[in-house]
Parts: sequence; structure tokens; C-alpha cells
Amino acid sequence: MGEFDLIERIRARVDTDDSVVVGIGDDAAVLRPDPDRDLVVTTDTLVAGRHFENHWPASDIGHLALAVNLSDLAAMGARPRWALLSLTLPESNPDWLDDFLDGFLALASDYRTLLVGGNIASGPLSVTVQLMGDVEPGRSTLRTGARVGDIVAVTGSLGNAAAALELGASAPEALVERFHRPIPRIAAGARLVSHARAMIDISDGLIADLAHLLGDGLAARIDLENLPASPALQRAFSADQDRWRLQATGGNDYELLALMADDAFAAAQASLEGLNVALTRIGRIEAGQGIQCRRPDGSMLELDHGGWDHFDSH
Amino acid sequence: MGEFDLIERIRARVDTDDSVVVGIGDDAAVLRPDPDRDLVVTTDTLVAGRHFENHWPASDIGHLALAVNLSDLAAMGARPRWALLSLTLPESNPDWLDDFLDGFLALASDYRTLLVGGNIASGPLSVTVQLMGDVEPGRSTLRTGARVGDIVAVTGSLGNAAAALELGASAPEALVERFHRPIPRIAAGARLVSHARAMIDISDGLIADLAHLLGDGLAARIDLENLPASPALQRAFSADQDRWRLQATGGNDYELLALMADDAFAAAQASLEGLNVALTRIGRIEAGQGIQCRRPDGSMLELDHGGWDHFDSH
Repeated sequence: MGEFDLIERIRARVDTDDSVVVGIGDDAAVLRPDPDRDLVVTTDTLVAGRHFENHWPASDIGHLALAVNLSDLAAMGARPRWALLSLTLPESNPDWLDDFLDGFLALASDYRTLLVGGNIASGPLSVTVQLMGDVEPGRSTLRTGARVGDIVAVTGSLGNAAAALELGASAPEALVERFHRPIPRIAAGARLVSHARAMIDISDGLIADLAHLLGDGLAARIDLENLPASPALQRAFSADQDRWRLQATGGNDYELLALMADDAFAAAQASLEGLNVALTRIGRIEAGQGIQCRRPDGSMLELDHGGWDHFDSH
Repeated sequence: MGEFDLIERIRARVDTDDSVVVGIGDDAAVLRPDPDRDLVVTTDTLVAGRHFENHWPASDIGHLALAVNLSDLAAMGARPRWALLSLTLPESNPDWLDDFLDGFLALASDYRTLLVGGNIASGPLSVTVQLMGDVEPGRSTLRTGARVGDIVAVTGSLGNAAAALELGASAPEALVERFHRPIPRIAAGARLVSHARAMIDISDGLIADLAHLLGDGLAARIDLENLPASPALQRAFSADQDRWRLQATGGNDYELLALMADDAFAAAQASLEGLNVALTRIGRIEAGQGIQCRRPDGSMLELDHGGWDHFDSH
């Protein structure tokens, strides 16, 4: 099966709407953005053996490739609109492609994202998604904006993906699910925009991503006992020390990390009502520099590394 | 040098303007599109060993990665605006990155394209660019639209890249330049929009790409002696038969292939005045099916294959 047959296989399955003037099959897609909104664009590449393993179900790879991009839009408070998909495949395998699309398109449908174009090349397996969304002008939540005294808050729970990665084949299904099929916090991000001063999604690890929110002269204190842990994580890592390490340094959670004023927290928490997403205070912004992780007894936990760097840490 | 140092190295060199509300360095870029225009988006991936060789100058790879995407916008008659760059690199090599950016950003500057974001991952060398442009609503030139009797016209000259590929190390510099550093026909595409009924850029080869313009019941006849050949190609392949084969089936030229009514051709040609880009009639759309390549004596040239398929032909 050739490149054009594979593309036709994709085209036959995608949804469309009035915003798509020209979709899959021409030199480029033509889209009609909402004239009153800014465009929000992001891209992420997943490489076999780095971000996922070849033996993963292709539907999980499809889900993950879109989810990590949706998560970036969530961190901006943006609404997803259209995606481009660039697949580099070692061979033409229509069954693999169908499974991949099962995961990709199910998530796209859940988040009202239309696949409007892309590219298929031959080479070592990797997936690049470009995602376009929109937002009211001036309403994006940026990484800058932190102030001394701000509350550090996080959605959902932390450490699940890192635990699955560490446990490997013995990881319980609930943790593997969080690693392979993370849930992008689009709705939570859109609501937190009104309350947060700064926001980022946790892809590289809590400490590494929190560091991106700290400008000159700003430090952060994390209270380890407040880090939200899922029941599955608590069962798999009952020793606090091990669990905290995973929660503070492990990546791939794709929860939102938001900074907000003290008196904004209650409203932020209330704004998530009905979404089934918790918002938890886990620390505070202080004057100084660095990030300290404090045990309940007041002592500091020393951590080996502060997250994921694609060239340094792996 | 880590991922974030590499990103900082890119950010330090990019241009910006008022349309970029948030550029490189946040979770996503925020852009302010022109409210009166449609968005035109495309993506292409270049894989080492397939679309370029590892030993190429990195600046050529940077040029090519953007050029192939600009060419897709040219074929839509669109104006380039913003690019995202996803680099997958086997190692962190700042010198390579600097050279890559030399080629990428010089071309971006020539075509007023702003690099606003992207991604760096570790893995086998490949480059994915996502390019966004805009166009007046309803003004894109699509692949559909061909009619019996239409003239087949092409910009510039054909067969240069294929000749460089075939000659390998012995290829003259003028041909290598066309292979490594193709010139996207953005200005020509924007002007041809007013005259062409259908348009595509020639990436896979004249015959393969012309086939994409032929709907049911449509055939095409190419007059081989009319295929425009550069002086360098004529010197390197003086035998008509060899040259025609390269021109009809060789890919990577990134010239525009346009179909237009008989009485539109003169105006189309005149519209390119001042651009230093020729527009040449090379054939005609007929009723029937298939593409015939006619020698000056009226006989047909049989060609081995009709272009490039990423899985079938290579």
C-alpha cells in the first residue's frame, strides 16, 4: 500500500465542519479562523524508543501524540480547533495506521479537534503533531506572571506516569493508562485562565516545569505531603520518600501547574466544579532562588535531578 | 548543551512583529491573524537518508526544510506568515544547529516568514516544519478545477534536482544548488491565482503531480520538446531522451504546475513580469485518461515510473 493509499485511508475517516475550507488532499489546508480570536499554535514530536516504545498499542501512540499537544493548548487556556499530523513510518502498514487513527481520532473527537492535513514520510518511526487552537485576545495564561506569595496549585494527581515507567512490565494498568493515555486538561485550563497568573503543563516533571515559571528573584517551596497522589500510586509506592521523588521529578503527567494569588484559589477551585478535576495547593512562591521540597517535619528532600532534558538526562 | 540551551540559541536569532503575541518560549505561540483572510497551513517532514543526506551542509537542510513548505503555500497562492520547527537530532550539536539556522532563517527572512515556536527531540535526524500563511477567502488555487482544453503550464525549468541526484558527486554545482536549495515560487503563485484553474507544486515529478490534477474523464498530453530545461541541465544531459526522462519523472523541482484556459495564458505569462520566472506551455488537458508524453515526431515516450511514492518507489 503506497503513500497515497494511506492518506486516502486517513481522509476517509476524518470529521470536518464549516471552518475547514479545504481539508486533506490539496497542497495545504485552508481554514477559516474566528476573526475575534487569537490563534494558538504548538507542535510536539514523539520518537519511538524515547517517548514511546515500538511494542505499545498503536492506538496509545495516536492518543499520546495528540494529547501532549492538547496539553500545551490547555496550559494557554486555549480551545483546540485543527491538527496536522506528520507520520514517519518504517513501512507501509495499514493495520498499524488504522489502530493509530483509532486512538488519535477518538481523542480528537472528544476535544472537537479536526484533522485537516499532514504528511507521511518513510523513515524511523516518529510522530509530529501540530495543533492549532484559539483564545480570546489577551486571555492566554503565560509562563511569566509569578509573584512572591502566589500559591502553587496543580490539577489532578502527580507521579502516575513516572511510576508506570519505573515499574515497567509490573506496573498496574491504572498507572500504565495514565502514562500511555494522559488526559489533557483543556476544560480546566480554559477555566483557570480567569484565576491564574501563570500556567504550564507538567511534561518534564513538577520541579523542571515549575522552574520555567520562576523569573529572576523568585523561588518556590513545595510541601511534599500536599502532592496529590492517585490511589494506584499510593498502593504501588507506599513509602513517602519514593512516592514524593516520583511526584516531584517524574514527567509525562500532563497536569496543569498554576500560580495564583492567595485570594484567587477558592474561586479557581470552585471554577473546576463539574469537571471531575481536583485543584490542589502544593506550595508557594517566595523571594530568592531555587525550588525547595519540604517534608512534613520541615526538613528538605534532596532530589537527584530536576526533570527531563532531551539531551542531558537520557 | 541541553535542549533548553538549544532553544535559547534559536530564540536569540528570530525576528518578530506585531502579529506574534507570544513567540518562542511558552507552551504555545499566540498569533494574531488578519481577520479578513483565511489561514493556509501545511507541513512536510524531511528524513535523513531519504530527503537529504547526513553529509549535506546543515544550512542546505535548513533551507530545504522551509523551502518545501513554502512551495506548498505557493501552490495555493498564499502568503507565508509563521513557521513552527520540529527538530529531531541524534546529538546536541550547537554548531550544526547554527548552520541549520543560517539556511532556515535566511530563507525565512527572504519570504517574510517568522519562526514562532517548535520542538527539539532526541532521535534519528529529521526535520518537520509546519508553515502557516494566509490568503483572501476563496482565492486559493486548488488541485481540482481542470477542464478539457486547458493549457498545462510550468514555471522555471524542470529536471535539475533529478539530474543532480542521478549524477551524484559529479553533478555540476548549478544542478546541486537546485536540488539542495530550491526556490519556492511564492510570488509567482500569488500572481497565477488570478489566471489558473488548478495548481500544484512539482515535488514528486511532473507526471506524478500532474496526475493529481486530473479528475475522472480527464487526460493530459505533454509535448516533451517544450519542457523548459536550464542551461546546466542541457549541458549535463545533451541527449533528448535522457533529459526528457528526468524532466517528466524527476521530483524535487518545486516549480509550479498550473492549468488554465487558452485565453488566460498570455495574461498569466505577463503577470510574472519582473519576477525573473518563466511560464512555459508544455501540454494540454484532453478527454480520456492517462498522461501521454509526445516526442516532436509525434511518437510517445514510454516512461518507467510516474514519480515518487514514499513507500512504493524507493
